[in-house]
Amino acid sequence: MTSTLITGIGELTTKDPELGRLTDAALVFTDGLVAWVGPATSAPAADARVDVEGRAVLPGWVDSHTHLLFAGDRTAEFEARMAGTSYTAGGIAVTVGATRAASDREVEDNLRRHIAEAVSQGTTTIETKTGYGLNVVDEVRSARIAAGVADEVTFLGAHLVPPGADADEYVALVIGDMLDAVAPHVRWADVFCEQGAFDEDQSRAVLEASRAKGLGLRVHGNQLGEGPGVRLAVEVGAASVDHCTYLSSADVDALAGSSTVATLLPACDLSTRQSLPPARRLLDAGATVALASNCNPGSSYTTSMAYCITTAVLQMRMTIEEAVTAATLNGAKALRRNDVGHLSPGARADVHVLDAPSTTHLAYRPGVPLTRAVWRAGVRQR
Amino acid sequence: MTSTLITGIGELTTKDPELGRLTDAALVFTDGLVAWVGPATSAPAADARVDVEGRAVLPGWVDSHTHLLFAGDRTAEFEARMAGTSYTAGGIAVTVGATRAASDREVEDNLRRHIAEAVSQGTTTIETKTGYGLNVVDEVRSARIAAGVADEVTFLGAHLVPPGADADEYVALVIGDMLDAVAPHVRWADVFCEQGAFDEDQSRAVLEASRAKGLGLRVHGNQLGEGPGVRLAVEVGAASVDHCTYLSSADVDALAGSSTVATLLPACDLSTRQSLPPARRLLDAGATVALASNCNPGSSYTTSMAYCITTAVLQMRMTIEEAVTAATLNGAKALRRNDVGHLSPGARADVHVLDAPSTTHLAYRPGVPLTRAVWRAGVRQR
Repeated sequence: MTSTLITGIGELTTKDPELGRLTDAALVFTDGLVAWVGPATSAPAADARVDVEGRAVLPGWVDSHTHLLFAGDRTAEFEARMAGTSYTAGGIAVTVGATRAASDREVEDNLRRHIAEAVSQGTTTIETKTGYGLNVVDEVRSARIAAGVADEVTFLGAHLVPPGADADEYVALVIGDMLDAVAPHVRWADVFCEQGAFDEDQSRAVLEASRAKGLGLRVHGNQLGEGPGVRLAVEVGAASVDHCTYLSSADVDALAGSSTVATLLPACDLSTRQSLPPARRLLDAGATVALASNCNPGSSYTTSMAYCITTAVLQMRMTIEEAVTAATLNGAKALRRNDVGHLSPGARADVHVLDAPSTTHLAYRPGVPLTRAVWRAGVRQR
Repeated sequence: MTSTLITGIGELTTKDPELGRLTDAALVFTDGLVAWVGPATSAPAADARVDVEGRAVLPGWVDSHTHLLFAGDRTAEFEARMAGTSYTAGGIAVTVGATRAASDREVEDNLRRHIAEAVSQGTTTIETKTGYGLNVVDEVRSARIAAGVADEVTFLGAHLVPPGADADEYVALVIGDMLDAVAPHVRWADVFCEQGAFDEDQSRAVLEASRAKGLGLRVHGNQLGEGPGVRLAVEVGAASVDHCTYLSSADVDALAGSSTVATLLPACDLSTRQSLPPARRLLDAGATVALASNCNPGSSYTTSMAYCITTAVLQMRMTIEEAVTAATLNGAKALRRNDVGHLSPGARADVHVLDAPSTTHLAYRPGVPLTRAVWRAGVRQR
């Protein structure tokens, strides 16, 4: 057993309901788990000691929504969109072509590079999805590669109907041979329930078949307009419904009365010049709100959880406290994880030190890179 | 003479009207000045050689508007504003009190720390202002400290009428003893022409007296609503009018027909939950638009020019090209500088290497820290 004491913590955000936020605090982790949290003056001895000199410490980010199994480049599409072309789901097919053409090594290197970039900015738990394969061989390959690298892996065969395919025939493939082959590599299944992707019946079929295989459920919904995504996610007991940019009152009420997390992806909304999601309505109604990056090369090419938090506070009227909770504890809830997203004794020692005296600076200092140090499961990453 | 060759440049943004943007390029600087720019294959030999392996290279940012002569903390005010309290210029008085109470060393250390933070993110020319002294002794002290550290220094005695003072008497002090004492240390004078600060006549008096002392002119205007700021700036031939958040059609036309730069401060507008400025209207009318951070502890506590560019492209419908020009060449125009903001032969060797293949990634990858390397006047900073 080796233990590390982090002391001199100006503000310690634990996201533990009892411990809350402490000042002049210290934290000890032992063999990758938080062992002790409390006032700096009563900290126990440890094998190693790091003084963070008054800085803020909080749990590492839990980024519960990314698409990092990809190859190829979509810079030109982004430039075209910024010049006025509207975003449609069709651009996904470009990445599908490039991903299928890439070697296993290229896909894995790309995944590892983006995860390393995220970790260097404070992310310590990351979910990622298949969905740029869209045939049995390539979906399985993506799932297999991700399983060895990412914390959580989601099967998103139902990302898009491949160009030229019949939608119902494709759904039959997804819930048949594709699901059979991919399920052993993943914990989650997801469907893009949106006009231009999969309709309500097709989405329900994917979710029910996935549940029957023992997978947890997630839904992409209500990104481009109101629709059945949120309602369906709540109906099937999905852990999370992601995007939630356009919500009816009934959608807000359904989320508030459920254990389904509303995962908001503001970097995506801004990168596609959509409206920002109605975070305030969701929070005021009592829904559980998470923030995630949606990192992907088409609609949201960022690994920056800080950017999501800054945007949530400055432009979506979330408080700092709500935004930090959304990017830590509620990201973990969206993944049904109890071991990350907080710094209670027994939690995984995912520790994020800011180059700032408080988490407020995540919104007060927009764009300034504030990640000073990161430990994941007690191992120093940065 | 020592020379450095930077080669392997995937995309070289020169902001030189003839050279434009080059691919597969190289750049040589000698004794702090750009000596040669062209195709990598025909680059001359140099004493040192740096291969940037396909990355994008552009001029360092010119941040033409900051307020870094300050002490004290306004985190609590920011938190209150995010909780719903509206922003008024009155908060400046808090910083005035803290700044007057601080030692020279504290003020200078704070200035140097913030400039270093800016440089580490690619800023190579920075303007900063007095304006938290508001009496002769403290305004002179701020100007003297800044003169030794920042590239450009502006006298902003007319930032706010000190609490309890009579506005006209204070203006008489500003354009009398204060201007006499500060002028030797600064190149510029500025006035906050806004309801709650200085009215049109008071502002004109400050600008005319400053011009008579040989200072260049700048104006804070149209931040909180339409008003006389822009019109006055154009009338007196100011180099720049800054904020421009609320503009009448006449304001836009006046700017378009003038050599006064419209300097937009989007991080400030977002941090105070104002509207974003009408960049598209200004550009379409033919005005010269710059972007700056407005770094200050009250309304815009960021040194991130990348955040300003990201916001300008994603939310203000500027193109990448326009936003990068606004943060380099037009920032230099706002300071009437020909030697920075571009990489023409003869320019100061202010070189910014991105961890990305093109400047597009400044908006395509929101929040991701992309500064890989920075040289200022040929000296490596990062």
